[in-house]
Amino acid sequence: MISEVRKKATLAQEAAVAAGRLSTAQKNDALLAIANALLTRQEEILEANAVDLKNGRENGTSTSLLDRLALNSERIAGIAEGLRQIVELPDPVGEELQSIQRPNGLDIVQIRVPLGVIGMIYEARPNVTVDAAGLCLKTGNCVVLRGGSAALESNRKIVEIMRDALSGTALPQDAVQLIEDSDRASVNEMLKLNGLLDVVIPRGGASLIRNVVENATVPVIETGAGICHVFVDASANPGMAAEIAFNGKVQRPSVCNSIETLLVDASYSSEQLQALIARMAEANVEFRGCERTLALLPGTRAATEEDYATEYNDYILNVRIVDGLDEALGHIRRYGTKHSECIVTENADNAERFLHEVDAAAVYHNASTRFTDGFEFGFGAEIGISTQKLHARGPMGLPALTSTKFRIIGNGQVRG
Amino acid sequence: MISEVRKKATLAQEAAVAAGRLSTAQKNDALLAIANALLTRQEEILEANAVDLKNGRENGTSTSLLDRLALNSERIAGIAEGLRQIVELPDPVGEELQSIQRPNGLDIVQIRVPLGVIGMIYEARPNVTVDAAGLCLKTGNCVVLRGGSAALESNRKIVEIMRDALSGTALPQDAVQLIEDSDRASVNEMLKLNGLLDVVIPRGGASLIRNVVENATVPVIETGAGICHVFVDASANPGMAAEIAFNGKVQRPSVCNSIETLLVDASYSSEQLQALIARMAEANVEFRGCERTLALLPGTRAATEEDYATEYNDYILNVRIVDGLDEALGHIRRYGTKHSECIVTENADNAERFLHEVDAAAVYHNASTRFTDGFEFGFGAEIGISTQKLHARGPMGLPALTSTKFRIIGNGQVRG
Repeated sequence: MISEVRKKATLAQEAAVAAGRLSTAQKNDALLAIANALLTRQEEILEANAVDLKNGRENGTSTSLLDRLALNSERIAGIAEGLRQIVELPDPVGEELQSIQRPNGLDIVQIRVPLGVIGMIYEARPNVTVDAAGLCLKTGNCVVLRGGSAALESNRKIVEIMRDALSGTALPQDAVQLIEDSDRASVNEMLKLNGLLDVVIPRGGASLIRNVVENATVPVIETGAGICHVFVDASANPGMAAEIAFNGKVQRPSVCNSIETLLVDASYSSEQLQALIARMAEANVEFRGCERTLALLPGTRAATEEDYATEYNDYILNVRIVDGLDEALGHIRRYGTKHSECIVTENADNAERFLHEVDAAAVYHNASTRFTDGFEFGFGAEIGISTQKLHARGPMGLPALTSTKFRIIGNGQVRG
Repeated sequence: MISEVRKKATLAQEAAVAAGRLSTAQKNDALLAIANALLTRQEEILEANAVDLKNGRENGTSTSLLDRLALNSERIAGIAEGLRQIVELPDPVGEELQSIQRPNGLDIVQIRVPLGVIGMIYEARPNVTVDAAGLCLKTGNCVVLRGGSAALESNRKIVEIMRDALSGTALPQDAVQLIEDSDRASVNEMLKLNGLLDVVIPRGGASLIRNVVENATVPVIETGAGICHVFVDASANPGMAAEIAFNGKVQRPSVCNSIETLLVDASYSSEQLQALIARMAEANVEFRGCERTLALLPGTRAATEEDYATEYNDYILNVRIVDGLDEALGHIRRYGTKHSECIVTENADNAERFLHEVDAAAVYHNASTRFTDGFEFGFGAEIGISTQKLHARGPMGLPALTSTKFRIIGNGQVRG
């Protein structure tokens, strides 16, 4: 018997032919129809969400997870508004990337085309269900959604509403599929569905992403882990260094572009460093220090190798004093995850070396790593932040959900 | 004990820091040094190659494989000339792809950077050893080469010469590594070397590529299979249709951009079709036909489902008569490998529908599919033809061997 995963991916693959052909206006109409339907039928969504929340409480789900799971009128309005913002974005499909005239008269144009069918594997938040579907549909793709089991009732209702809304539009209903089988095996089946899924995008915690990367034969766009650093160079402006480090750690520690380790040049003012640390301590940051840091701040816990390699996502910061730029670069090479890295310095040569030599999706001179984000970069929407080097790196806007095609027009040319 | 694969990949990863920093001139100097050394030391290469050929003959290797394996003065001169051509190509590293000024004063520039370390897994021809290394080094990457065991002695000598030549240049010798362990396990170890290899590129037959795609956790750029079609529409110019179909099948049947199936509109002149088939038959093409083709050409063997799904790479052609464009599109959707597809027609609407609706790396109107090739597209070199949709699709020039990086320059900006 054909599995749910294969059946729905096949339907999506069939729908992809029609979806890829639609005009921007037709796709936007479909997105607006979904946005309206989510608002009109929000009571149904809230009822389904209440079931998820009740199940969650009975299963002892943590308060923070329940909070992420919970929907209300305001959140649903935000989700619908997100779709309207996607409508406003330019459609990358059809964009000409290069145009080549060959001496033999061949006319070659490379254009953006949809990827086809995108598998999204994600965790609790039901807003991702709409958000991901919206981004995929805008780019002419179909989507097979596999959300976390904790949000199953909410996702089922949301997808039902999205598919109902599509019935009045040019976009086939089968462009949006939800895998309801909450067994882990359904994820693993998706990962091997070459020929039916064109790409899989995992969004979630480290273990979810690791499972996808390790087991997928379908191409993957990896998003995720960020062990980011701020290096305060000897010549750093102390006020600026303090603001950037504080912002990197404290403004929102739970996200991937926050910092985990502060590297400080040994020549940097120890008073300034102590002041910065005192300010962070007031904001409830705990520290792990290298030996020299411990001498400066007695009573601090020593940083281990494992600490330097940990994405805390929490109010914890490693502090390491280094002898100059090269030692800082070496530390980042060893422990960084190639996400976002920052140097604070007034020394132009050191800034240029840092920007040139650090291998990361985003390298900063005198600005917070927290800016690594599709909205902050002006892309207007974000599928996620790619931490891989192929296809897309860093914040991914709509073009990351496209492939390309060469259109070649001749008048009978053959190869000699 | 640390394996050969891990040891050499680690050396390459360490060398990648320096390789990525070099100027175009420094990289070109290194490539020219290699080209010169290969010519100067060609006797050593020929001696090593003679050992491979002797071993091959003793092991009963086929004549065609021995031919691909064999080097001579002329072939070595061709390999060195290939490096000189790579020197002439523009260096994509450092190219600005976008420049964004944000209202908060952040200056964001996206530039091309090397991928890092590229694993190449390939089969017999020793010219790939130099060719692949040249393309990787030009783009600031390091390379871990794993050639076929049949060419081990040749590859060992070639890599020794390349590394010796690098010793007089700015490029570290460790930028080029050869895996000498000819056990299949060394390939499988490469495929799981996340963190040390940034990408793996397989070049070779279907089973080599399948093994890589199915087992790699490192990102892969898939190259390879091509089941390509020519569709002769009702309005096709018969002379043009005949030339394009003939060229697609006969000019070089062994390559991925040759055609396997000819689709012909039922309204197309049966005399013209018969003439075309007669011409191909003279060129020793065998046919597999659909029912209607068999009625036209009694004695032809019937085409099976499996035939339509086979990349013959040989003088064999399926011929299928279809009722119009939609049936042709359906056939291509079902059996094509999304490589190169062609319509021959004088009907502009049908041409546009074909170019728009066929999902393939290259779609042609009135030109041979044999043009899907980096040199023919004017890229000047080719790593291979990507048959995947992520990162690169179709013929891959040097930019396909790069990633990108966002450089962000601020004056103390933090996120609110």
